[in-house]
Amino acid sequence: MDQYEIYVAGKFKTTSTELPVTNPFTGKVFARTFLAGPDELEDAITAGLKAESVLADMPVYRRYKILTDVSEAIRKDKDRLAGVLAMESGKPYRYALGEILRAVQTFRIAAEESKRLPGEYLSIDWTEAGDGKEGWVKYFPVGLMAGISPFNFPLNLAVHKIAPALAAGNPIILKPARATPLSVLELTRILDKTGLPPGAVSVLPMDRQAGDQLVTDPRFKMLSFTGSPQVGWKMKERAGKKKILLELGGNAGVIVTPSADVSRAAGRCVTGGFAYSGQVCIHVQRIYVHEAVFDSFTRIFIEKVRKMKFGDPLDPGTEISVMIDEENAARVEAWVRESVDQGAEIILGGKKKGNYFEPTVLTRTASSMKVCSLEIFGPVVTLEKFSSFHDAVGMINDSRYGLQAGVFTNHLDEMNEAFNNLKVGGVIINDVPIFRVDHMPYGGVKDSGFGREGIKYSIHEMMEPRLLVKNKV
Amino acid sequence: MDQYEIYVAGKFKTTSTELPVTNPFTGKVFARTFLAGPDELEDAITAGLKAESVLADMPVYRRYKILTDVSEAIRKDKDRLAGVLAMESGKPYRYALGEILRAVQTFRIAAEESKRLPGEYLSIDWTEAGDGKEGWVKYFPVGLMAGISPFNFPLNLAVHKIAPALAAGNPIILKPARATPLSVLELTRILDKTGLPPGAVSVLPMDRQAGDQLVTDPRFKMLSFTGSPQVGWKMKERAGKKKILLELGGNAGVIVTPSADVSRAAGRCVTGGFAYSGQVCIHVQRIYVHEAVFDSFTRIFIEKVRKMKFGDPLDPGTEISVMIDEENAARVEAWVRESVDQGAEIILGGKKKGNYFEPTVLTRTASSMKVCSLEIFGPVVTLEKFSSFHDAVGMINDSRYGLQAGVFTNHLDEMNEAFNNLKVGGVIINDVPIFRVDHMPYGGVKDSGFGREGIKYSIHEMMEPRLLVKNKV
Amino acid sequence: MDQYEIYVAGKFKTTSTELPVTNPFTGKVFARTFLAGPDELEDAITAGLKAESVLADMPVYRRYKILTDVSEAIRKDKDRLAGVLAMESGKPYRYALGEILRAVQTFRIAAEESKRLPGEYLSIDWTEAGDGKEGWVKYFPVGLMAGISPFNFPLNLAVHKIAPALAAGNPIILKPARATPLSVLELTRILDKTGLPPGAVSVLPMDRQAGDQLVTDPRFKMLSFTGSPQVGWKMKERAGKKKILLELGGNAGVIVTPSADVSRAAGRCVTGGFAYSGQVCIHVQRIYVHEAVFDSFTRIFIEKVRKMKFGDPLDPGTEISVMIDEENAARVEAWVRESVDQGAEIILGGKKKGNYFEPTVLTRTASSMKVCSLEIFGPVVTLEKFSSFHDAVGMINDSRYGLQAGVFTNHLDEMNEAFNNLKVGGVIINDVPIFRVDHMPYGGVKDSGFGREGIKYSIHEMMEPRLLVKNKV
Amino acid sequence: MDQYEIYVAGKFKTTSTELPVTNPFTGKVFARTFLAGPDELEDAITAGLKAESVLADMPVYRRYKILTDVSEAIRKDKDRLAGVLAMESGKPYRYALGEILRAVQTFRIAAEESKRLPGEYLSIDWTEAGDGKEGWVKYFPVGLMAGISPFNFPLNLAVHKIAPALAAGNPIILKPARATPLSVLELTRILDKTGLPPGAVSVLPMDRQAGDQLVTDPRFKMLSFTGSPQVGWKMKERAGKKKILLELGGNAGVIVTPSADVSRAAGRCVTGGFAYSGQVCIHVQRIYVHEAVFDSFTRIFIEKVRKMKFGDPLDPGTEISVMIDEENAARVEAWVRESVDQGAEIILGGKKKGNYFEPTVLTRTASSMKVCSLEIFGPVVTLEKFSSFHDAVGMINDSRYGLQAGVFTNHLDEMNEAFNNLKVGGVIINDVPIFRVDHMPYGGVKDSGFGREGIKYSIHEMMEPRLLVKNKV
Repeated sequence: MDQYEIYVAGKFKTTSTELPVTNPFTGKVFARTFLAGPDELEDAITAGLKAESVLADMPVYRRYKILTDVSEAIRKDKDRLAGVLAMESGKPYRYALGEILRAVQTFRIAAEESKRLPGEYLSIDWTEAGDGKEGWVKYFPVGLMAGISPFNFPLNLAVHKIAPALAAGNPIILKPARATPLSVLELTRILDKTGLPPGAVSVLPMDRQAGDQLVTDPRFKMLSFTGSPQVGWKMKERAGKKKILLELGGNAGVIVTPSADVSRAAGRCVTGGFAYSGQVCIHVQRIYVHEAVFDSFTRIFIEKVRKMKFGDPLDPGTEISVMIDEENAARVEAWVRESVDQGAEIILGGKKKGNYFEPTVLTRTASSMKVCSLEIFGPVVTLEKFSSFHDAVGMINDSRYGLQAGVFTNHLDEMNEAFNNLKVGGVIINDVPIFRVDHMPYGGVKDSGFGREGIKYSIHEMMEPRLLVKNKV
Repeated sequence: MDQYEIYVAGKFKTTSTELPVTNPFTGKVFARTFLAGPDELEDAITAGLKAESVLADMPVYRRYKILTDVSEAIRKDKDRLAGVLAMESGKPYRYALGEILRAVQTFRIAAEESKRLPGEYLSIDWTEAGDGKEGWVKYFPVGLMAGISPFNFPLNLAVHKIAPALAAGNPIILKPARATPLSVLELTRILDKTGLPPGAVSVLPMDRQAGDQLVTDPRFKMLSFTGSPQVGWKMKERAGKKKILLELGGNAGVIVTPSADVSRAAGRCVTGGFAYSGQVCIHVQRIYVHEAVFDSFTRIFIEKVRKMKFGDPLDPGTEISVMIDEENAARVEAWVRESVDQGAEIILGGKKKGNYFEPTVLTRTASSMKVCSLEIFGPVVTLEKFSSFHDAVGMINDSRYGLQAGVFTNHLDEMNEAFNNLKVGGVIINDVPIFRVDHMPYGGVKDSGFGREGIKYSIHEMMEPRLLVKNKV
Repeated sequence: MDQYEIYVAGKFKTTSTELPVTNPFTGKVFARTFLAGPDELEDAITAGLKAESVLADMPVYRRYKILTDVSEAIRKDKDRLAGVLAMESGKPYRYALGEILRAVQTFRIAAEESKRLPGEYLSIDWTEAGDGKEGWVKYFPVGLMAGISPFNFPLNLAVHKIAPALAAGNPIILKPARATPLSVLELTRILDKTGLPPGAVSVLPMDRQAGDQLVTDPRFKMLSFTGSPQVGWKMKERAGKKKILLELGGNAGVIVTPSADVSRAAGRCVTGGFAYSGQVCIHVQRIYVHEAVFDSFTRIFIEKVRKMKFGDPLDPGTEISVMIDEENAARVEAWVRESVDQGAEIILGGKKKGNYFEPTVLTRTASSMKVCSLEIFGPVVTLEKFSSFHDAVGMINDSRYGLQAGVFTNHLDEMNEAFNNLKVGGVIINDVPIFRVDHMPYGGVKDSGFGREGIKYSIHEMMEPRLLVKNKV
Repeated sequence: MDQYEIYVAGKFKTTSTELPVTNPFTGKVFARTFLAGPDELEDAITAGLKAESVLADMPVYRRYKILTDVSEAIRKDKDRLAGVLAMESGKPYRYALGEILRAVQTFRIAAEESKRLPGEYLSIDWTEAGDGKEGWVKYFPVGLMAGISPFNFPLNLAVHKIAPALAAGNPIILKPARATPLSVLELTRILDKTGLPPGAVSVLPMDRQAGDQLVTDPRFKMLSFTGSPQVGWKMKERAGKKKILLELGGNAGVIVTPSADVSRAAGRCVTGGFAYSGQVCIHVQRIYVHEAVFDSFTRIFIEKVRKMKFGDPLDPGTEISVMIDEENAARVEAWVRESVDQGAEIILGGKKKGNYFEPTVLTRTASSMKVCSLEIFGPVVTLEKFSSFHDAVGMINDSRYGLQAGVFTNHLDEMNEAFNNLKVGGVIINDVPIFRVDHMPYGGVKDSGFGREGIKYSIHEMMEPRLLVKNKV
């Protein structure tokens, strides 16, 4: 059984508390790592604070080299790393490999953006009070950061904290999800060889109690959290003076109009709805189809869902596999049953087998049902009809969340209305809302989040502007 | 009879050569001004060179005040100025007033942009060679400028030279069109009261020979010309080392598709085609209508053209009046006749009465005919049918010119194709190509021009970047 | 006695609770207004929510006109308004008039920036996953805002909430300081005539309990607060999901080196230290002078402080007057006494007469004394010696605050060190940290604040980006 | 003897005219390539025009991969390529290797910038005329480009044409200097394997007559030339409608003030003055030293120049070697002699041996002497004294050229004066003007050039903006 030491202040360490890691498909523990306690965290913080000035003063060419070296090292080991990721998360290998390649990209983009940190020139003499003065703005790293990342993209969502932190010149302590700590611990083995100062990055699996210090300790200047809305919003209240960035969940919707390529839309909705069993913040949860094409869409969609291949995540042919754990599968089952009790109809699926939940399509749902209003985070989509585009926009907006939305249309007025009126962070025209590339601004409005990731945007959140006013005299 | 002195190096002057100004509608001389000769030009240049450092060093709040004061002064006198402009140019009062108000805007925008001159910060240490260094870029005025403006927007196109020049910190010598020197001479009376240094702006009507020095004299650091393609491109070859900006002509086209509001499109095409008798660089010269709506478009369009009210430019109800002179009307007539000889058909109009040319609509034209291929600069449009959008884009592109194009469509794929493939400076979706506001980037590709106006863009062309690399040591 | 109705949802109203307004110099009540209660606040919120879409959809030219009209209306009434402001705040007329003129500017800048709201283009196809896609970002208003402004700049700091909110398209409910509600109520009389929808701006004086709803009510999407650190940071914890911007206090420091013009530095420090009795967030509280010029600086400085003219704020010759109330004067006196008990020496001043506190200069202070470590917000400066520039930077940084700092130097290496190492929001070279113009980015780090004001920057904080990903298909 | 085929429209070819390549140090022909004639050029143009749309439509990830692959391929072969470059140019190996590594960087930067092509959002509705409209700007490649590069950086200055052309989406035909065609032909062997369409890049050594078609043929949409001022400015007049970018020469100056580290300044001036025998556009030609440190500077400087090691360029220890040919050495000798005849004094060097010219230091020169006023492009520097900084700035500006300047100072007011008043493209504080990194904006004012290189800036010059105005309707 593989053992992964945790990475504390530039050293690999074990602790007194083992953390076994289970393969969700086999249900067997296949590796172990360790939980950090207050001592390890204190070491990491102390080293992190020391690393602040080293990182801030590091010339760009060194930051760039470190970040590109990490990117290349991940790429070289991509197949093995995809296996580790698939094993710990139950994510089908094809998607696991995709995530590894995205992490390669994320580091690459961070390297490039480290060369392009913002800065501004401004004239100051707009009134006589500013006569003889001019202004320059540079951006400086905020300082020690805390990052908390979720199980569903165990590597790349951790990298979305680590890579921009380093690009901006900030040390970071990252707490991965306890279920999936391995791929990011693999990353620390790469990071360890790059010449970063000790404490630049520490990765500490922790239980929630110990991890809470990441939220409350004032020595952290910023907290970047990806996870559930309930947990995230509570952190905001307890974060003290630090900056905070929250990437939370949603119940992303799609609109399909008659002017779209309905068959293509249906195919994209299958991927959007069921990739990694819907355990994705922006998975397609709600599909709204115009009445004129509802039947044809439904037929094609259902047929494609039916054909999805279930199997072991490690099998390259597998398209859908188990959920992260049985607790979540049971929650999904309960929500689906409740919706049926409240009048919804199951078109397909609906059954749980252990921690596997079948790809499920519901219709005749109401916006108040949990399967619509909450984040299902499972392989369940609702399929409903609309008659006017304006109504469809209203249906998407009838939610406490607002992360991304997809609109399949060839009509300019519909694109305009969607972009101007959908209360979300991103509108994807002619594709599903699950679409994300790592440099685009990403994040939600309403209950879905606070701030934006996407490397350039993350970096901006992780820096403070400082103005220089230079008097002529 | 009103007399307008020319404005040379901060002084109002007469010269030995009178320039009578004719009202194109009545054919009568109603005012006189003077032609500058080499002596006046030399005085203007000498003062301009002296003004260079004064303007470059002028604090922003003073530039801003001067430019906003000018804007307000024009606004206060807008009705009288519109009358002067209508008289000298034959432009219907409604459009003349519109032009005055645009000049108000152009100065206002220049004032605002003078506060926002560009500047950049860049890290230099992308390789070890740059270790310890950082870079700042500021933009500095190029120096003395020459401007040449045409008859068709006698005030606002001159202002598009003068206002950004001052915002950037450059002195300028402007040569207005000989037919229409009055409205810009009115402007000099306003400029004279603003506290600008002598030579900051000189306005010199000149014959072509004297004016040629604006092109060839190396003391001018930049030439900004708006006028005909033939004249403009020859200037480029003779301009020596100076920067050059050319705003030339075109034969702007419009595409009308079935997904558009055909009636609205037809109405906009009437304005676009016949405002100021088509004497506008971006007037609608070629209309391409999808076969499915060709007949209905034609019916509505012709009906609206028929209803245009001819009259004295000074009459507020007048929608169309005479052309600038009979020579141009005769040229238009000759081109129309030639097109008919070559197989074109006149749907409406086609006749010349003195310097009036009727609003004319042709069809069955070929792209090789002068009415299609050259800039007609008169009240003539061609109306042709297409069957595929792709072909329509090709028809627009089948031209040596590329200024702006209009596309009436509600289809996203058509908008995308138009934007990505039309070889023009600007694509106007759901409006006619005559659309211009004074802050947008404006200018042509192919034979239609070189560089971009639109205040922020003009200013950028009128400045030179200077890099500061600051070594840490 | 003048009566000012409060401005609720587009209507001027009285309430059952009078709020008398006192002239701090005479100690007499000279006007009255009213405290809003939960009902008025609820009306304002309801109308504000309704105004959201009206403001968001308002075309730029209308926003611009409203904001420039307000700017002009303030300018026209500047002398009277300066009198009102001087009366309610005890601010000497010369500074009161300066503040009025800054409010004129702030609205003007907001008008200009409303034309320049951010937006971005980005290519999406950095990997094959993005093939055929491109991205556009637009910024949308966050929605209903709450603003809380302090007594010391009763008009312009309120305007720094209201003007950018409107420029961004957000309605706002503003709570002014209870001591100084009049000048911003004067502003509402101007705003009322501009054609803004009811609820776009409401101004409600409230007691702290009622005002607390501005912090906690989730219908506010953002809270912008200027005031004391203690109050501000507690708000952050109780603000729920809303965005928050905090402009808090500081203990701004100045460094004077031998390469500077010492006499000029001394003169600027007098203004920076004692304008409005030091009741300014960025007033000069700590002066560090190089030992080589300490004596000469001190001599000139003390001489100039001695000459400051005390008097009635309404007297144009007055340079220093009373503090806002006796409570604050007493607090300042206590801190000064405590510092003396702990070893500090009074060079000048130190005495309280009613709510007047003499301009006071202390030396031999320690960084732990309240007069150094806390925000004095009174007419007290400390004057200390340093021997190395590096030490001086450390002295400035030895503080929980970090708003702005001033550095008088002609040495490039000192400027670089100051800019790169001073932990503040702004470094003013060759001037005092009290320097602020209304378009520059302004705000603190450490305990001094969260986020940046300065119109363009405020607007950015008040908007949310939304990404459009457009697939080619 | 190595044979290098030329690269025409995706094919390696020989022609009927051999071009022998000489090693300037040994004087022996060591390789041969071929001169292209009108037929090869026509093939290249035809294929280039075909490649326009392929390149324009190529997704970013493919452009990026091609450019990074080229960068990596150069890096892998860097030692051998440095040898080829040293052999053809006589450039000492250490500098030759440096140039190869810069070419690696230049392609890398171009790859990164290809992801970040510019684009803009702008509101259009600043007046009622724009109601309901908004604007987006994208940049499109200009089309087929011509590039002409000089002998002194035979690879990297060619790469400064090729890499940004490809990043922008433009095909390019490059004419290298006839003396040094090999390193860029080596590059074509790398380019050929990248999957670029035929005609994307052609490299054609040509005699001046054949090469002239690059200037005059209207099928080229842009010409980018690096070379001598006389040749460059004549091209501008004959370039027709195409865009033009000129990187020409200069007589770069340095100012050394007493506040600087004089010893370091002297050392940097040795490198700046004599690297590659001064055959660099921005080599240090004129040194102005403050009288207070003139003697000490001179002593250190002369001592260091004396120690420069002459030898075979291929010897890694060589610091200075022969010039490109005897013709140039003879020209330098003549200018030096003429200066001595006119009163200059030789402190060091001054002699020619074949095509070697000794490192030469002159003093008592006058600005009218050729060694000062023209571009010496040889190992000659002038060393003069000044007493006021203001005068020194004037001395630098007393030149028809303005490329870069260096200023060694620790005084802020001197930095400000230098930056605001030196009429050059770049001011390097505390380093020599020879400083260039490949991403910084680079180019001259006055007779030194037209436009800016530096990848982002080159790309911008190689693209045309196109505005989309989208009407709401």
